[in-house]
This record gives sequence, structure tokens and C-alpha cells, in this order.
Amino acid sequence: MADVGTASLENGNGAETGDQAWLVFMPSGKRGRFTKGTPILTAARQLGVDIDSVCGGRGICGRCQVVVSEGEFAKLGVTSDAHHLSDFSSVEQRYADKRGLKPGRRLSCSAQLLGDLVIDVPADSQVHKQVVRKRAEMREIRLDPVIRLHYVEVQEPDMHDPTGDLQRLEKALKAQWNLEGLDCDVRAIQGLQQALRKGEWKVTVAVHMGRQITAVWPGFQDKIYGFAVDVGSTTIAGHLCDLATGEVVASSGLMNPQIRFGEDLMSRVSYVMMNPGGDADMTKAVRDSLNDLAQAVAKEAGCTVHDILECTFVGNPIMHHLLLGINPIELGWAPFALATDGPVQIWATEIDLKVHPNARIYVLPCIAGHVGADTAGVILSETPYETEEMTLIVDVGTNAEIVLGNKHKLLAASSPTGPAFEGAQISCGQRAAPGAIERVRIDRDTLEPRFKVIGCDLWSDHPDFAKETEAFGVTGVCGSGIIEALAEMFLAGILTQDGVIDGAMAAKSPRIQADGRTFIYMLHDGQPQLRITQNDIRAIQLAKAALYAGARLLMDKLGVDKLDRITLAGAFGSHIDVKYAMVLGMIPDCDLAKVTSAGNAAGTGARIALLNRSARDEIARVVKQVEKIETAVEAKFQEHFIGAMALPHKTAPYPHLAKAVNLPEPKIAAAPEGDDGGRRRRRRG
Amino acid sequence: MADVGTASLENGNGAETGDQAWLVFMPSGKRGRFTKGTPILTAARQLGVDIDSVCGGRGICGRCQVVVSEGEFAKLGVTSDAHHLSDFSSVEQRYADKRGLKPGRRLSCSAQLLGDLVIDVPADSQVHKQVVRKRAEMREIRLDPVIRLHYVEVQEPDMHDPTGDLQRLEKALKAQWNLEGLDCDVRAIQGLQQALRKGEWKVTVAVHMGRQITAVWPGFQDKIYGFAVDVGSTTIAGHLCDLATGEVVASSGLMNPQIRFGEDLMSRVSYVMMNPGGDADMTKAVRDSLNDLAQAVAKEAGCTVHDILECTFVGNPIMHHLLLGINPIELGWAPFALATDGPVQIWATEIDLKVHPNARIYVLPCIAGHVGADTAGVILSETPYETEEMTLIVDVGTNAEIVLGNKHKLLAASSPTGPAFEGAQISCGQRAAPGAIERVRIDRDTLEPRFKVIGCDLWSDHPDFAKETEAFGVTGVCGSGIIEALAEMFLAGILTQDGVIDGAMAAKSPRIQADGRTFIYMLHDGQPQLRITQNDIRAIQLAKAALYAGARLLMDKLGVDKLDRITLAGAFGSHIDVKYAMVLGMIPDCDLAKVTSAGNAAGTGARIALLNRSARDEIARVVKQVEKIETAVEAKFQEHFIGAMALPHKTAPYPHLAKAVNLPEPKIAAAPEGDDGGRRRRRRG
Repeated sequence: MADVGTASLENGNGAETGDQAWLVFMPSGKRGRFTKGTPILTAARQLGVDIDSVCGGRGICGRCQVVVSEGEFAKLGVTSDAHHLSDFSSVEQRYADKRGLKPGRRLSCSAQLLGDLVIDVPADSQVHKQVVRKRAEMREIRLDPVIRLHYVEVQEPDMHDPTGDLQRLEKALKAQWNLEGLDCDVRAIQGLQQALRKGEWKVTVAVHMGRQITAVWPGFQDKIYGFAVDVGSTTIAGHLCDLATGEVVASSGLMNPQIRFGEDLMSRVSYVMMNPGGDADMTKAVRDSLNDLAQAVAKEAGCTVHDILECTFVGNPIMHHLLLGINPIELGWAPFALATDGPVQIWATEIDLKVHPNARIYVLPCIAGHVGADTAGVILSETPYETEEMTLIVDVGTNAEIVLGNKHKLLAASSPTGPAFEGAQISCGQRAAPGAIERVRIDRDTLEPRFKVIGCDLWSDHPDFAKETEAFGVTGVCGSGIIEALAEMFLAGILTQDGVIDGAMAAKSPRIQADGRTFIYMLHDGQPQLRITQNDIRAIQLAKAALYAGARLLMDKLGVDKLDRITLAGAFGSHIDVKYAMVLGMIPDCDLAKVTSAGNAAGTGARIALLNRSARDEIARVVKQVEKIETAVEAKFQEHFIGAMALPHKTAPYPHLAKAVNLPEPKIAAAPEGDDGGRRRRRRG
Repeated sequence: MADVGTASLENGNGAETGDQAWLVFMPSGKRGRFTKGTPILTAARQLGVDIDSVCGGRGICGRCQVVVSEGEFAKLGVTSDAHHLSDFSSVEQRYADKRGLKPGRRLSCSAQLLGDLVIDVPADSQVHKQVVRKRAEMREIRLDPVIRLHYVEVQEPDMHDPTGDLQRLEKALKAQWNLEGLDCDVRAIQGLQQALRKGEWKVTVAVHMGRQITAVWPGFQDKIYGFAVDVGSTTIAGHLCDLATGEVVASSGLMNPQIRFGEDLMSRVSYVMMNPGGDADMTKAVRDSLNDLAQAVAKEAGCTVHDILECTFVGNPIMHHLLLGINPIELGWAPFALATDGPVQIWATEIDLKVHPNARIYVLPCIAGHVGADTAGVILSETPYETEEMTLIVDVGTNAEIVLGNKHKLLAASSPTGPAFEGAQISCGQRAAPGAIERVRIDRDTLEPRFKVIGCDLWSDHPDFAKETEAFGVTGVCGSGIIEALAEMFLAGILTQDGVIDGAMAAKSPRIQADGRTFIYMLHDGQPQLRITQNDIRAIQLAKAALYAGARLLMDKLGVDKLDRITLAGAFGSHIDVKYAMVLGMIPDCDLAKVTSAGNAAGTGARIALLNRSARDEIARVVKQVEKIETAVEAKFQEHFIGAMALPHKTAPYPHLAKAVNLPEPKIAAAPEGDDGGRRRRRRG
């Protein structure tokens, strides 16, 4: 054992003396004195320096690469010289010839300490490396793999020592990797003898959570994958990740086939209520799709589904239950009881997932009957529990899940927005697809619109627009388009604060036209005609009022009036212009610079749980502490809802918004319309 | 909390004082002072007295029955009076009306302490009750259930507290049973919500090893079963046990259907070698049979296979591997490597066993490539590791497994006896079935035989024998019959010490007849003729020499010359007369009073592992310490084998046997026979 310690360098230990030398690892700064000739990896292990290795120091895996930092390090009291490292060995040469080695890189298992050295451990050589996220403001994912690979050489059986093959494998794991007290999956035992003999007693072992042998491959194996899936009610999206690097190597998505049983969540639960066994049909449908998705990503990545050893899932409570084969019927009526609000870790085979036969799945915990594992994923991705900032996170889908709080407390609720934001219930609405209007501007004087459609970068008033959109035309208005259309109509004075199309404006522009007792705005007079009707506006008002009321209710519960940050999660959140969302009053007032979109944060949460085992404990702990608010039983929700029907709000001030946008003065519509303006409570779904 | 303690009664605390009274439990002798009005069960729990309960003190299960011991207990310093117990309550009356309550019995959950009392806890009210074994010399099985049932009342869900049903169940288990940190099988979660609602929030929960929720039933449930199975190469035998009482409630057996792939073990391994996929076929065959067997015992016991929550298995290494879906091919050639020599605990579904979907199976550990989990079962049943007596245990089947030792050390080996002891390779041999000769006596003067056949209690020289055996006749000689025939032939001087039929005896009786170069002994001149040929004798000599040589080799290894006890395990062991086995020299000399048959000790071992969870750790620990001897690589084995060909042995003295039996003087046969007398080594199987 080396003279490992924190001995002060100032005490004269800085210089190389006798048969020992100083070794400093960067960036950790861990240091110690070691006998000359000690392999760098051996020293690193003794110091607890984070250097990866699958082959256990045999020069096969190349995971343990390091670089010498040359120079005089006055602060460290060490003069580091590349000649203080042993010459390039035949083992390193063999590796370099076979798999390539960048200039300056050395295999720390082979290179030996000959004199004082400062050694850099590059990020890609660390087990617990950081996985970079696209969004600069987010903390990076620290790799902390659930499964690690260990290459071992196993003693052959012997008539004089008739131990089992498994026991000799365990002995090797103890001797070569210091792994003890392991269990072994029976399916791994079934293939063990063949693997050992095919690999001539050299095998690679996958160990789950440091406890369980889940796979044994003949010879050396260094690629295993994990699969993180967001099971949405409309779309299922999966990311295949390299478990050693954390990188996403393939992504794919497909429609949730349960749609044939019901477009939205509640109609699927109704299907189960009406059709005994319907839950099993839907469970089978989603599991079949997951198998298709796994096949697709594996193909894209050039591996097979059998290389997938770990899967994580998020989804709303009904998707969560159906995935796990739990009848979701109790989620269809009060009190909306979850079967479990804890995380579930089981075998992939238990949900009929055809990946590696011993793969595990981990399903993030649900929070409440309407706030699912998808929201847990969002929380894990956005980590509001780590900041002092009062943060509102809104995941807008068919329901809106709302999380509010900071490191001191988190609240969560679901608000029944309905599918209007997705273009459903809107006369000219459609899903986001080429030809759908997604951006709208209305001239404040002429009230003439211009717009952009998906699939074309030009505005509609550009001379080439017709030509460029010829292939798909202008077919409807998607969710973000309807938000912008309404917000612009409001800003242009076409809509009153109460959401009524002002008939008086018909005099100003032929685009405002009478439609029975109400008026419409002709957004696009083509084939088809795209008209914004009073009913369309009412549908959006109901949805946005529900969303605002939910957020406001949580603010009341927490006793806060102002938000420091708003994050819009979900696909919808990525496409809307947050300014227009605020003009409509979908969300409370906030500094617009602090209102951001998080993309598929639920899916990112699944990916974090896949790559970082301690994140699993973290989210389970956080979810337990989240206070769940059931909007349906809160009297205040109704009150907030009514106030939130107005644009942006009947009474709430929007000082930040007013600075960014020229908000019109309140006015009364010229022609009253027949709608009761009240609330039509719908079942969420 | 009561004033629980060991306060000396002599100190004047003996008398009932104030609002407290003394309570003494028998037979444990645990005592304490408790506030009057305390339910007896509550007091028992505080003192750690072993009283069973499934319903948790609700007067439903009736497991907690106790009896008042009336009288003045001078030694205890207590005067116990039935009136010191509260009157028969309405709860007790309801239980008595519904399920019956023996006179004097009280439900300890309902009956309250009113004054000093001595309370008897009957054996059937204890969780850790003793299960009586038929054999008086064996330690009883202490019940220590792997699974316990807990009746709980669960809080209903509430919109204001949206916890999962599982979490409220866990809360109830914590509050009502002090069970914490439980996991739950996903299949139990799947059925949880329905069970809770069907049971109106009262359910019975099965908890495995105090850790895992494996089943949830609506309402009260108090019967669950375990299934202990001995998977033999010829016969599969299963016992269904009530897990609460430990009693065997049904037993059944059937032929191992793998016989169609090969009569003995080696031919089954050869089948796999010759037919890729043959292992899967045999695995399926044995698993199908286990399902049939489970159905049969469940039917016999009046329950269903879904009431079986735990199964244990023993079997030789090849049966063990095939059961678990492990290709046994490595057991067919040197070095006979086991896939694992550890115990295996997995789900029943993992071996396609259709019992309760969350049932676990536990497979006892194998010891070496030829010494299987059946031998581990024998060791667990016979506990040679607990005695000072030098014990030899022989499990005679197609192979013989041999265990030798005592509490200081155990050795184990397998000896290739072949199937001669089972009547195979014997010209007149047959399986044990009606009509098979099982007992033989030969008159020392006339050399006339008399015998008994299976299915008839009369000797063949009884006048009614022919009539009584008319239905099945005299059809062959089974294993025990051939042993007795040869031993009697030897004692009557028909056989020489070398195992040769002495042609000179043909002059004395027409039963000895020439047969080519050798002679035969006509055991039964009927239809069919049953003749003992020189080849038959040779087959038995080879088998018995292998058995003896194995035992003797272990004695050498352990450095002992004398045995204190010999136990014959297995079906064969139950049927042979140990005296004749010793006359043939199958086993070394020993006091005949200490040579006993253990019956199906392997199966008993499976039953112990089923009923006592600590027995599992015990046998895993013992098996690790057993020294394994591979007879095939021991030169001494050959030497012992040759000496053991003679009757009872060429050189070894048999002083105990000589006292019990008139052993003939050595002599030379009149007519030499052509056999080489040497060793024909066969593969075991």
C-alpha cells in the first residue's frame, strides 16, 4: 500500500525522493506518494480517483486513458515530466493499433509512475462523467450508471475442487473487482456455462446496482444501452442511450396505438368501464408499441434489442397504470386513487418488453391521481427543488400539470384544460403538421393577417409563399397558431378583454364578419376557409382560464404573488411564443426573460433516471415531499377560473407584460353574443 | 406500557396490587405486571411471547387461543384463577358460534387481564410451533414460516390526501403490524385496487420474509400452502403443506416423464448431447409434470393451485439443472461442473409453475457435480452436522450419494452403483410392484427358498399363498428381494465369499443347476421361472462394491475406522433389511441397532426448507463446508472396490455383523466361472 495521504507539500514532501514519487490527479487534485513502477490506474484506485475501466487493467477496453500534464506546478510543488511516465508499452501499442489512441493519451492501467507526475483524467475517462445538456441553464447529468460491466478471467473447473461455475465467477469478481455478496438472475445462470466456455473462461459481466449479475457475455463486451421512454397519451417517444457515455445514440417516436380505444385519456378509461378486459387490450397495445420502438432505436444505433439492459419510463397516471398492467379504472372517478405512488422497479419481461432478458425497468413515481410520473420526470429535469427562485412549471398537454415552488416547498396540481391548446375543439384547428398555421401577425391598422405555416419559412405576405407551400397548402391552425391568432386579435382590438369579437370592427375590415348572433375573424380566405369563431375563442378561454386558475391556486396555497421563473414543458411549450401565452393570460405575469421552454422535460427526466442511479432516490424523495393539490375540491379554483376568463385577466395586473407589449384599453364589444360566458366544466381527459 | 420486568417475586411483588396484576405465560415462563384490562395478546406481544395471529387481534382468525392454568403456583408466587380473566366476550362468542372453540380455550386478543394469572399457550397457538416427525429419533421441524399472513384495515383514499392505495396499505401494515420498508410484487400491485374495494378496505396480505408483499386477498384469508418436491430421475414426489400448521395435507407422486428421453441420468445427458434442444424438451416435460402434481395435491387438499405461495425443490444435479432450465451437458463429462452450487430462489413463474402468480420457489443447493440438492435435503433432514456420532448416510438410488462425518466435518461423494439395486440388469429383476419378491429365506439344510411378494403378507410356504397372490402372481424380484436372495444364498453356503455359485451344492439341491460354464439358483420354478444367475450376482457385486468403496474412501479421508451410525435414505433404503445389506457388504460394519432407514430424507429436507426459513441459511452454510470427494480421481477407490467385491468383504472385519448373523467360513467354489472377477467400470447414471 502506498503512502497515501494529505501530507502537506510545504513540509518538504514535494520533491521526488528515493523509490517513491508524488502523483497528483487533476481535476480532482487527489494526490499521494507511490512506489515507482506503480501503474497509474492502481494508484488512482487507491486514492479513489474516478477512472473508468471495464477490462480491469488488461489494456483491452481503453476506458482508463489519461494525459500527462507537463511543467512545474508551483502550487502543487511538483515538476511533472512526460519522462516520469514509463515508455509506451506493447499493451498500449496493441490497443493503439487496434482501436486508435489520440496523441498524448496513455492507458493508465499500463503506464507506470517513474517520477513526480501530474496526471489529467479527461472527462471521457471518468465513470461519473457529465453528460452535456442542450440547454445551457440546466445542470448537467452526472453519469452514475445503474449497470457496470466487468471483464473477468475465471478459474476453470477442476475435479478436485468441484465448485459451481457461478461460484468461481463470483470469486473472480471478488478478486478482480472487489465485488461481494452478489446475486445472479436465473436466466444469467442458464447461459453462464456456455458463455464461460465460449469465452475460454474470460467473460464480461453486467452487474446491476453493484448487487445482481444480470448478464454474462463470452470475452470482452463494452457496449450496453439504456432506453428512456416517455409514454404520452398521444405520442410515445424513446431515447436509446449508451450507458457508458450517457449519449443519446438514437431517438424515435410513434403514435400511441391506444388512440384507437379513445382519443383522450378519459375516453380510454371509459372504454375500460364499458368493456371488461379493455384495460388488458390497451396494455398489450402500448407494450407492443414499446417493442416496435425498441426495435427502431436499436436498428438506428446499429445494435440489437438484446443490448438494452435498462429501461426507464415516465407517463401520466393512466399511461403509467396501463403500462404496468394495472386497471386504470380508479383514476376515472373520485377520489382518483393511484394503485401506487412509489417508483416501480421490475424486470422488463414483466411488461413483456423484448430487450435483454434480464433487463430491468424503472418507472418513475406518480405524484397524484392526475399528476403522473411524467411530472416527476419534469421535476427531476428542471430541479425546482434546488433553487431559491419561485418557479412555476407548466406541462401543457391535454391536461396541464402544474408544479410550483422552490427548494423550501413544492406543490403540484393538474388542471383540466381540455385539448383546445392542441387544436382540438377549434373549428379550424388541426394537429401540428405541414400546412398548419403556427405564427400569426395582425396589422393594427388594416387588421390584415399574415402568417407562417409549418413546412415553410416564409410569411404569407411574401411573394414566393404560395409557390413554397403549394405541396401542402394552408390546411388549418395548430395549437401555437391559435394562441397567436387570438393574442394578435386582442392586441389589434378585434377581441375585447372579455374575449368577444367586437362587431364594430366589421366596419374597419371585411375580415370581421357576422356569424349569426356573433362574429368571426377570417384568418385565411382560401381552400379551406380558416375562420376564428366566437366558439373557438370560448374554447381557448376555458382552457387558458383552467391553466391560470390552477397556477394561481398553487400560488395562493404557497402564499406568493410573484414568480421568479416560468418553465413551459412539453411539446406544446416548445412551440408557443411565451409572450403570446402571457398576452392570453395562460400564465401569470413574470419577467419574460425568465419564461422559457423546457422541451420534453418529462423524457429528459426519464433519461436522467436511466443514467444516474442516485437520481432515482432523489426523485422518489422529492415526490413524497410534494404537496398535492386537488383542484376539483378547491372552492378558490372556481373563483380564479372566472377571473381568468378575461384577456389577459379581469383583475390581475401584468406589469412585466405591459412593459413588453402594448396592451389595449378595456372596451365593451359592440354586439353582445349569446354565450353565457360562464364556466362549462368538463371532465379532464 | 406495562411494567414489564424480571422483578423478583420474592420481593413482595407476587400479590396482586392496585390496578396492576401479574401475568405469567407458560411454557415460556415469560412474565410481567400489566395494567388490569390489558388484553392477554397485547401483554404477550410486549413480552415477546410466541402467540400467533393473522387478524391482528380482531377475533377473526382464532390463532391466538390460550388456556388459563388455575391454581396456586408457589414457585411463581401467583394464584391464578379463571375469574381473573374477563368474561367470555361477544367477540369470542361470535368466533365460537362460527368456527367452534374448545372448552377452556379463550381468544387472547379479546380476553383481558383482571388479576394475577398463569396462561398456557398451547402448541397450536404458537407461530414457531414444532411439527412432529414420524421418526422418533429425529429433531422436530420448528415452524418458522417464510410467508406470514396479516389482516389489515386500510384507510380509504381521499381527494385531500391523494396517496396511492399501496402506500396506504403499507401505512396500515406499519401501524397494525409494525412491518416497515416493504416492497411489493408488481403482480400484487396489479390486483391491489380490486382487492381493497372488494374487501371494503379490509384485506389479508401475504408478506414474504418480512420484506415483500406477494399477495393481497379481499377480507380475511387464513389458509395458504407450500409445496415441497423431490424431483427424482424416476419418480417425482410432492407434499402439500399447510404453511400455518406445517402439516402435510396432501401427497402425491408420478413418474418422471423424462424417462422417455432416457431411462437413467446419463442416457438423458446423452440425449441432450445428441439432440440440440433436447434439454429444453426435458425441462418442459418435468415442469409440465410439476404442474400436474400441484393440481393433484391441491385437489386432494380441497384448495386450488393459487393457494400455493411457496415451493421448495430437491433433486440430483441433472434434475436440478433441467428443472431450472440449465443445460446439463457439463454434468455429462469431466470435470462435471455445476452451473451453480448455491441455493436458487426465484419466482415460480420463472420455471413456468402455475401456482400463485407471485409464489417463490427455493431450490436447495447442489454439493458437487454428482452430489445434488437431494443430498443437501438428506443432510438437512438427518443433521449429521449436529452430532458427535460418526455418521454414514447412504442414499441409494441409481447412483449412491454418500455423506460421512459429524459436527466437526462432513464429506460427500457419489458412487456409480448403477441400477442393479433397483432390479435393473438382473435377469429376473423388476420394479417394486405387486407380485415382486421382496423377502427371501433359504433353508440352511434343504436350500429350499421361501419368499414374500409385494401385495401379500403371507410367506410362499403358507397354504393360502397361491390363492392370495392369484390376482398378480409371482412376477419377478425387486431390489430388496435380490439383496435378500443373495445374502441368504451366501449364508446358506450356496455362494462363496467371492460371489460364485458353488456347483458342488447342486448335489445337495436341484435348485442349483448348471447354466453353461456357471450355475444358477432356481428361486421360483413357476411362470415365469425366476433364476438367480451368476451374471445377476456379478451385477449386484459391482454395485455393492462401488457403494462400499465410496463409503470406505470417505472413512480414509476422515481417518476413521468405525462408524457410530448408518442411515439409509431413499425409497430403496426403506425397503431393505439392513442386516442383509450388511451381509452383502453394501455398507461397512456397524452396530445393527444404529443402522436405520430414513425414508425419503431428501423430500423431508425439502419440507424443512419449506417450513423453516432459517433452515435455508443453515443448509447453504453446511453445504459450503462439506468437503467434496470425486471418487473417479481417487486411486484408492479402485483398491477399495476390488476388496469390496467379496462377501461381505475380502479383508475388512465385520464384528458387529458376526454377532448378529452366523457368517459362513470362506470356501472355494467347486466350479470356477469364466468371469474375470475384475472391475467393469461403468458410467454412473
